[in-house]
Amino acid sequence: MDPRHLMDYVTTYTCSRHIKLAVDHRIPTSEFGSVMEKSPENQYPVTAFGWAARDSSGVLSPFNFSRRATGEKDVTFKVLYCGICHSDLHQIKNEWGTTNYPVVPGHEIVGVVREVGDKVQKFKVGDRVGVGGLLGSCHSCENCASDLENYCPKMVITHNGTHYDGNPTYGGYSDIMVCDESFVIRFPENLPLDACAPLLCGGITSYSPLRHFGLDKHGLHVGVVGLGGIGHLALKFAKAFGVKVTVISTSPGKMKEATERLGADSFLVSSDPDQMEAAMGTMDGIIDTVSAPHPLLALLGLLKSHGKLIMVGAPDKPLELPIFPLLMGRKIVAGSSIGGIKETQEMIDFAAKYNITADIELIPIEYVNTAMERLAKADVRYRFVIDIGNSLKN
Amino acid sequence: MDPRHLMDYVTTYTCSRHIKLAVDHRIPTSEFGSVMEKSPENQYPVTAFGWAARDSSGVLSPFNFSRRATGEKDVTFKVLYCGICHSDLHQIKNEWGTTNYPVVPGHEIVGVVREVGDKVQKFKVGDRVGVGGLLGSCHSCENCASDLENYCPKMVITHNGTHYDGNPTYGGYSDIMVCDESFVIRFPENLPLDACAPLLCGGITSYSPLRHFGLDKHGLHVGVVGLGGIGHLALKFAKAFGVKVTVISTSPGKMKEATERLGADSFLVSSDPDQMEAAMGTMDGIIDTVSAPHPLLALLGLLKSHGKLIMVGAPDKPLELPIFPLLMGRKIVAGSSIGGIKETQEMIDFAAKYNITADIELIPIEYVNTAMERLAKADVRYRFVIDIGNSLKN
Repeated sequence: MDPRHLMDYVTTYTCSRHIKLAVDHRIPTSEFGSVMEKSPENQYPVTAFGWAARDSSGVLSPFNFSRRATGEKDVTFKVLYCGICHSDLHQIKNEWGTTNYPVVPGHEIVGVVREVGDKVQKFKVGDRVGVGGLLGSCHSCENCASDLENYCPKMVITHNGTHYDGNPTYGGYSDIMVCDESFVIRFPENLPLDACAPLLCGGITSYSPLRHFGLDKHGLHVGVVGLGGIGHLALKFAKAFGVKVTVISTSPGKMKEATERLGADSFLVSSDPDQMEAAMGTMDGIIDTVSAPHPLLALLGLLKSHGKLIMVGAPDKPLELPIFPLLMGRKIVAGSSIGGIKETQEMIDFAAKYNITADIELIPIEYVNTAMERLAKADVRYRFVIDIGNSLKN
Repeated sequence: MDPRHLMDYVTTYTCSRHIKLAVDHRIPTSEFGSVMEKSPENQYPVTAFGWAARDSSGVLSPFNFSRRATGEKDVTFKVLYCGICHSDLHQIKNEWGTTNYPVVPGHEIVGVVREVGDKVQKFKVGDRVGVGGLLGSCHSCENCASDLENYCPKMVITHNGTHYDGNPTYGGYSDIMVCDESFVIRFPENLPLDACAPLLCGGITSYSPLRHFGLDKHGLHVGVVGLGGIGHLALKFAKAFGVKVTVISTSPGKMKEATERLGADSFLVSSDPDQMEAAMGTMDGIIDTVSAPHPLLALLGLLKSHGKLIMVGAPDKPLELPIFPLLMGRKIVAGSSIGGIKETQEMIDFAAKYNITADIELIPIEYVNTAMERLAKADVRYRFVIDIGNSLKN
């Protein structure tokens, strides 16, 4: 099989036997054998340095590799900050069974442009830019034609993916990034780069379904399940749209924080049947950010007729779906994954207009393994961001 | 609790403890106690006769009861034919745990008008009419205002429901029906009443989601899971819309029938992984009519990005929902239940225009228990219809 098409397989061929095939995608083939035999340090001409996990212990440590030279349509930028997404944690520990080591995580990457190719039109040296979960797509499928590169079957994901030349992709826990300008996002001057790095995944992951599923209308009532990295951004975007927001959480201790500091209109403790009962049938939609196994029945009950439960977390095992509640109210359960590049830029511009930033804990790279341990316990309010510029040293 | 609001509870309060409460809705209350103490035979002035199940054996036998006199907005009609829906079978055996005995099933009811009330505007004596799953709704909620009486929290279902006066509703395995004209459907002259009775549930159950979810566009590709009563009608409606239809079935023996006689464009045996693999990522939507437990993973794999899996069967236990395939293609799983009255009339008129009828096996009422046994084994092509007019005798 063509090793470039991991996402093709993961996306289209969802049988587990195909996912199994897909994760073998780095096995050298006749086409790419010569490339794959090179070490990460000499695959490309530009020296790069980051931190990588080598095995399913997930422990991150210094890693020398290389980046391609700036191509004619490429933007090369010095990485200043990189957010830690919960999916980074899943990946370094191979919890989805798809990790190819060594893996350099990080797809909430911001920095300043150092070099641009001759044909680059949108960016110049010194610009404040970012890259999220995507480095490339086919530019020829229906999804790409609709500015939905995030659903392109041949998209190139930012780490643990494969470049079109057959080499693995390495993410933003590293000193520099090289990327086709089509996938680079511009950051307006008023947005702080550290606190806005998480918008590139956590932000767009919540913004896109609110927009696509029509949950961005003034006066609607939307629930947000899980007040974590994505959840607190879903809350902020929804409030900026004029939506009434209820945070649904297993942690009663987050109530004051959610309602008083973050501006949620109300708060439900999901383990309290009386609270849940009183809120039944009141919501137009729910953004469910939880990747741990959890019951959907009560969430479906919170929805009005024709309400929408949007899953943006990624549980590794199937959830139980009761069908009756779907039938009786023509309700839907949907999934949504990040957003296209045009929409991601729109989201960043919207954040700039409404002063939306993530609540972050800025850490040096040396703290990253401790941060991962804390993240596994949901002990962060609400996103770790690595201060790459000031702490990553070779 | 108000015994009229069974559907309110089933619809809105989906926690199992509330469904349990809901099924207790015939317990006499102070408000309705005097009514509930009357026997089925003297609750109303008009003598009626049908067949009812008395317990969870599900055996149907003759049953004397009564109907209300024709009210000023009512249509009273002599029942000629009544289809047997698979949900009748679930209900007489109390498989959903919500049956109140005695139950007279039947909600695919057609006949000829015998009497109309003074204020009835749309019907006259002699008209060919039908009633489906609904006898009433609140006329004041958002759903009713949107011609979606089928999602009204206070809808009155045709059997095993409760009239607004507190009495139980009895369905169409009976000699006469009395119904508010707002819930009566007109049958054009060219539609045969026997073969079109099943359109009132099986037909609208497939027509409504094809329309609502935009799967009625020429050139789209829609899968139909299960070639039974609803499935064969989904196939016929989808073909009339100009949609490419693939039937997905566990029964290889149905291939010739599906493609050669019923006009399906292709046929997939769901247990054949090679066939399923070859069809991955090709469908815009799927109408899933199966009420037995079955896996959703492979069905989600058949969908293109942004594809829609619409559940119209009603499994009594939750199904396993893998979340990754939803995320990676922004796919949705939705439910849909019959249709509103305006849409049901639109569906009947569409069927008349395109000569769509159900494939039926016409049976006398004496055969109904045998028919139920055969239905439990899916041994019918494709809908039993009871010849009430010629076989039901008191």
